[in-house]
Amino acid sequence: MRVRIALAEKGMNYEYKEQDLWQKTPLLLQMNLDHKMIPVLIHNGKPVCESLVIVQYIDEVWKDKSPLLPTDPFQRAIARFWADFVNKKVCSDEKRIWLTKGEEREEAKKELIESFKILEGELSETCLTLGGETIGFVNIALITFYRRFYSSEMFGKFSIEAECPKNIALAKRCMQKDTVAKSLPDHKKVYEFLVQLRNKLGLD
Amino acid sequence: MRVRIALAEKGMNYEYKEQDLWQKTPLLLQMNLDHKMIPVLIHNGKPVCESLVIVQYIDEVWKDKSPLLPTDPFQRAIARFWADFVNKKVCSDEKRIWLTKGEEREEAKKELIESFKILEGELSETCLTLGGETIGFVNIALITFYRRFYSSEMFGKFSIEAECPKNIALAKRCMQKDTVAKSLPDHKKVYEFLVQLRNKLGLD
Repeated sequence: MRVRIALAEKGMNYEYKEQDLWQKTPLLLQMNLDHKMIPVLIHNGKPVCESLVIVQYIDEVWKDKSPLLPTDPFQRAIARFWADFVNKKVCSDEKRIWLTKGEEREEAKKELIESFKILEGELSETCLTLGGETIGFVNIALITFYRRFYSSEMFGKFSIEAECPKNIALAKRCMQKDTVAKSLPDHKKVYEFLVQLRNKLGLD
Repeated sequence: MRVRIALAEKGMNYEYKEQDLWQKTPLLLQMNLDHKMIPVLIHNGKPVCESLVIVQYIDEVWKDKSPLLPTDPFQRAIARFWADFVNKKVCSDEKRIWLTKGEEREEAKKELIESFKILEGELSETCLTLGGETIGFVNIALITFYRRFYSSEMFGKFSIEAECPKNIALAKRCMQKDTVAKSLPDHKKVYEFLVQLRNKLGLD
């Protein structure tokens, strides 16, 4: 999702190949630097891996249109810090909601809400806010989580919107943008995938 | 260590304040964006957090001297990918060696060696190699681990050098550089700190 949004923001055409993660294609296995994960961007025949690394690559290659990172080094560092926070902290809280149950899930819910409150409190005035028509690096990092709120709410039986209204308002604004809307899968499909994943892992 | 080496490479003078992680100073608590962790670089009165974010910041602010990241976007992406691999995978394997025992530790040792073999195999011809007198982003990411080999070997009772000789040869070359040598604590002090940490956590 992050890579597709970044490419859409830059106005680039691309060929999108869905991968079956249970049966990886030879192309994916050949093109991945190490860990056989998605996404991989193949550009000029060469692979770039890891979503946030790819987004920065896209921003550097097509630098004249819709900059995703600010130009000021300090603002860039702030954006990178929060994108890293999203990747490390929010992502880990969220996965624990999908993949655990009982007390462990309750703990993960608390932590996810805490993480979103930190984002909400610290960032609404800086790089998290959509400035007019542009979308930034932290927005792109977060947007995949926005698309998974439905799943987290279904598994966790709670409302993230009730706890973090500003964040959800921003999420909704983001998801209305053309470049974003056309790059996201249906949130119910995401949920179905996660239900299948729990089954495969023997968690239900 | 990463931040100190980056600043030394750029020839910058700085004031270094050691932190007691069991009793954090008000300055650290005030200057940290979120998680009250070290390192924090305070530049022009403003904090930059997370070691690899700080190293990129330093490279962007003092861009004319000793570039740490390549200029080509593809090479930059490769460097960022491997630095991220070091942070996520190597770091996690290493911590498990220090903080576990028995079978779990054996498993972590195997995984750490596998991770280093991946690095050794894939990177010796690219950005991991020290090019003449310069030191790159992946070297800087790795160097903190080089300094902790002694601890990992002491806890894990194994020789990383026997398994990954090229990597250790590179580590030794790196650590001979002035900018690196003067930025690293004694490896026995690192080990003593980790022994204390295990005690505090009730692991012994």
